[in-house]
Amino acid sequence: MNKKDIYGLLLPGGAAEAVLISDELNMRYLSGFRGGEGLVFVSPKRQILITDSRYTEQAANESEFEIIEEKREHTRSDILKELVREENISSLAYEDLSMRCSELEGFKEALTGITSWVPLKSAANDLRRIKTPEELELLRKAFRISQEAFSDLLGIIRPGMTEKEARAELEYRMMKKGASGLAFATIIASGTNSSMPHAIPSDRAFENGDFVTFDFGCHYEGYCSDMTRTIALGEVSEEQKEVYETVLKAQKEAILMLKAGVKCSDADRTARKIISDAGYGQYFGHGLGHSLGLFIHEKPALSPSDDSILQENILVTVEPGIYLPGKFGVRIEDTVIIAKDGCEDLVYLPKELTIL
Amino acid sequence: MNKKDIYGLLLPGGAAEAVLISDELNMRYLSGFRGGEGLVFVSPKRQILITDSRYTEQAANESEFEIIEEKREHTRSDILKELVREENISSLAYEDLSMRCSELEGFKEALTGITSWVPLKSAANDLRRIKTPEELELLRKAFRISQEAFSDLLGIIRPGMTEKEARAELEYRMMKKGASGLAFATIIASGTNSSMPHAIPSDRAFENGDFVTFDFGCHYEGYCSDMTRTIALGEVSEEQKEVYETVLKAQKEAILMLKAGVKCSDADRTARKIISDAGYGQYFGHGLGHSLGLFIHEKPALSPSDDSILQENILVTVEPGIYLPGKFGVRIEDTVIIAKDGCEDLVYLPKELTIL
Repeated sequence: MNKKDIYGLLLPGGAAEAVLISDELNMRYLSGFRGGEGLVFVSPKRQILITDSRYTEQAANESEFEIIEEKREHTRSDILKELVREENISSLAYEDLSMRCSELEGFKEALTGITSWVPLKSAANDLRRIKTPEELELLRKAFRISQEAFSDLLGIIRPGMTEKEARAELEYRMMKKGASGLAFATIIASGTNSSMPHAIPSDRAFENGDFVTFDFGCHYEGYCSDMTRTIALGEVSEEQKEVYETVLKAQKEAILMLKAGVKCSDADRTARKIISDAGYGQYFGHGLGHSLGLFIHEKPALSPSDDSILQENILVTVEPGIYLPGKFGVRIEDTVIIAKDGCEDLVYLPKELTIL
Repeated sequence: MNKKDIYGLLLPGGAAEAVLISDELNMRYLSGFRGGEGLVFVSPKRQILITDSRYTEQAANESEFEIIEEKREHTRSDILKELVREENISSLAYEDLSMRCSELEGFKEALTGITSWVPLKSAANDLRRIKTPEELELLRKAFRISQEAFSDLLGIIRPGMTEKEARAELEYRMMKKGASGLAFATIIASGTNSSMPHAIPSDRAFENGDFVTFDFGCHYEGYCSDMTRTIALGEVSEEQKEVYETVLKAQKEAILMLKAGVKCSDADRTARKIISDAGYGQYFGHGLGHSLGLFIHEKPALSPSDDSILQENILVTVEPGIYLPGKFGVRIEDTVIIAKDGCEDLVYLPKELTIL
């Protein structure tokens, strides 16, 4: 970020004289500081990062902000009181989407001179929607790592392996290939478990005839990957095939229509119509997709209620699913970067039904 | 939990007519539901879990609460409005420690009949302090898994292996042995990196003469383990030995005094005095320990400022450290269960200096 622009970007209408950024990811995005523990204060005059002695050296390396160290004898509240007094501020914006109620109460008690507390809403998060070329490179790398790991994993999947064992093998491969962590809790759901969209890996062993859904992603330099594949073991029934092909068609059709200028809800509608027309509408209970970046679930969402217009260099997942309770489920998920005339699919692994 | 007691446990004084539980772990603790996405409503008459179609099947399996499914056409707000109307409620408690400001505002806008919003403070968290026998079994298992994994890891640690490689191997072994995830981001810090208490694993390769600190833990059925060992590679200096022995003595003395009735701050003081008397007081910047359970950092804390009295079946970590900037660091951490006349150490691996 251009460090001079931040106040103007967050509060273009001047709704408050300064703003506190407390969300860890927004703090990183705006200041460059990756330590997590701290607080950012931005006014038209100053851009300040408050953190403690564990992080001041790191903060100075990573951020161009002015750094103030908080201590037991010079607390965060003391520092804020001084800043508010020095700048003669009576209105302050705060991140209501992420700040805890008790934290806001603490600030209100300490900063009695502030007469107007202004919720920032999604202003800081919204800055993160459109990715820079540097961010896109890190995201592509995160997707490469997770796909290489999954390709390796498919070589050892067999009946008798449990969901938990498969998870250990998949996560190990992502870490060995350079991931710095998981983007979210890995989902591996086999047989009837696959009918639960967010099933937790269990001790259930894979069996012939199973569908197995893998929904996984890693962190690379803080950026998330996210993809899903459903594979089959041994024989599959006609019903399984029909459901798989329906989900696949919905997923492909939605991706085909994605480009800058498209309304998010229209993409959801396209996929949902294909699934509904096939008679499975009631078994597709979640939205079609979501954006991601430093966090695994960002805005906009490809959901019936999000009428945002897609722009270039926004990422979205495309992940329709059909879940038949007590029987099985299928979800197929790619993540794409929106471009002017289409989109770049970050997931290159095949999505035709794989039967192991 | 005995499902009939929850309202009385949380609001023994009746400060509100009902309470919303939004914290994921408190929701699990009180309702049994492990899905994370949802909201619990508890009044003297009803105990309700609101969640969406992704989780309703799971919720019905895991919880004895009445389950209401939220949908686009029957949202969480709609459901709460009906509950408030049906029970004729005008005061509602909420979890101010974890609820986001914007979420509270949303509830206030939806539930105009509520005239008193009561911060619950730590009432729900406090119920989790003293562990049940069932919880202790899960915790013991989590500690066994992480120790078996670490024992295996020591067999392959050698100069030339990087911190990141060691992390991948350790985490893989925990997952293979039945962990369901990590309790926190694994710390592996070698050589001069070990002087930073919260170092992030890097591409640095282990060298002869290094101290390497491993601070790690896993989840088992949601419960956390947490332990630290510092090992040496090849030759160690007299200074390294002296620092190690000082930390070890502080750790052992603190554990010896832990039992029901002891004040948390006194345990911290005991360990801190040993380190200070040896001349390293300024290099032990953090508290002696913390409790844990479903979350990795729970109350009480073994810190200079926590005067809580330890009770039976509370867990605490005991983790003194000495960190010499630019040189090396040592931390040794066990976790114990407080008993009537002493404590049960969940960490059975040796803590005398191991030189590989």
